[in-house]
Amino acid sequence: MEPRELRERIREGLWKGPTAGYCPGYTQVNVVIVEARYAFHFLLFCQRNPKPCPVLEVMEEGVFEPRFLASGADIRTDCPKYRVFRGGEVEEREEIVDLWREDFVTFLLGCSFTFERALLAEGIPVRHIEEGKNVPMYITDKPCEPAGSFQGNLVVTMRPIPGDLVPKAVQVTARYPGVHGAPVHVGDPSELGIRDLNAPDFGDAVTVKEGEIPVFWACGVTPQVALMALRPQIAVTHAPGHMFVTDRRDEEFAAW
Amino acid sequence: MEPRELRERIREGLWKGPTAGYCPGYTQVNVVIVEARYAFHFLLFCQRNPKPCPVLEVMEEGVFEPRFLASGADIRTDCPKYRVFRGGEVEEREEIVDLWREDFVTFLLGCSFTFERALLAEGIPVRHIEEGKNVPMYITDKPCEPAGSFQGNLVVTMRPIPGDLVPKAVQVTARYPGVHGAPVHVGDPSELGIRDLNAPDFGDAVTVKEGEIPVFWACGVTPQVALMALRPQIAVTHAPGHMFVTDRRDEEFAAW
Repeated sequence: MEPRELRERIREGLWKGPTAGYCPGYTQVNVVIVEARYAFHFLLFCQRNPKPCPVLEVMEEGVFEPRFLASGADIRTDCPKYRVFRGGEVEEREEIVDLWREDFVTFLLGCSFTFERALLAEGIPVRHIEEGKNVPMYITDKPCEPAGSFQGNLVVTMRPIPGDLVPKAVQVTARYPGVHGAPVHVGDPSELGIRDLNAPDFGDAVTVKEGEIPVFWACGVTPQVALMALRPQIAVTHAPGHMFVTDRRDEEFAAW
Repeated sequence: MEPRELRERIREGLWKGPTAGYCPGYTQVNVVIVEARYAFHFLLFCQRNPKPCPVLEVMEEGVFEPRFLASGADIRTDCPKYRVFRGGEVEEREEIVDLWREDFVTFLLGCSFTFERALLAEGIPVRHIEEGKNVPMYITDKPCEPAGSFQGNLVVTMRPIPGDLVPKAVQVTARYPGVHGAPVHVGDPSELGIRDLNAPDFGDAVTVKEGEIPVFWACGVTPQVALMALRPQIAVTHAPGHMFVTDRRDEEFAAW
């Protein structure tokens, strides 16, 4: 199925599930929608923290068609599920047409689905996929560079990699700076302030086998955590796993 | 002389010239200061056009100390010369302390001085340096991706390179995406809408010798042209050649 076709089905309410594994080879992205008054500082937070916040497209005030990643699409309807944040409250919805405002600015951020396909293509195992789980995510003790009132600690994902494949895993993901790039740390969870790999802050714990090294990548949940800490009057994101599927091929985001 | 020392002399009015060739190995940057209401769209223009607009640091509203590139410096006094734009009028000044406003947002953008040092280090000739001239710059017919009300055509610099050194020139500059990166075009000026290499729009014409190919890189004048087209009530830049000298070494901006 082509991305355009999948998005049409989603828009018509014929398709509602998570997007992992669909339209293989096409880049899926995180969605963050904020009021215009937050836009400059949120974009600056991303610019200062490019590993957790790889900006692939920003749509100006009121624009709901992504010009670069998926022309003809509608960001108000084409994710299978959204989360609407109002102050501390969260609501899940299948579309946000009636909530849309002329001062909404939309950020589309790279997602690790892209580099996981590259890892698998190079014969590097991805444990949470093997185990049918969500990737384990941990809030580290490393503060991001703040911007305006946005601040928060770096969130990372962890994938256990056999020691002899760690160099290749670094090289393969380094090619994709637009989707978190090279790992931020190899080896010691305690260096990141992570006490127990079996107790992730989000997602599911996975098996770390004998001879495997935990490898940590910056995670796209980081900017969401920084945003939510501000308890904005209103903000919208995709629901976890229910991404926006673009028309761009993963390879287009390889740096070399 | 260390950058800190040079900036102090500039601040005290003891030093007023262009900065090319000073503090070799330390990155010099372009300065653009805009009112906060332009900040989001200007940053977005840079994000959408990273080759001509490589953002190395953005300082929030009212901040005049560059936190990352030169802590302890003062962006209001530490360039040898500034240009102040008011509507269509331009004024040159040695400092802008009395003009400073709490809603001024400062952008520091990478400059080709960094990759020219890398070219020279690899034995690749840089003609305008050999001839003691300013690099030739041309306004192309290629529109940048607009952002909000910012728009304009790509401006490029040209350096003639012997054909057998063109691949190396591409590779060397590709390592520095933070300072314009790889060339945007090799070979045919007319493909960029440039009619006469001997009539640059800014800077000086240089000799193109037998066997040399004109190689074109994106130029940091591009965002200034887009900004000036809006005739903002007030905006400030460094004066051409009178850059802000940072404490960061050129090598820190190499991508690999």
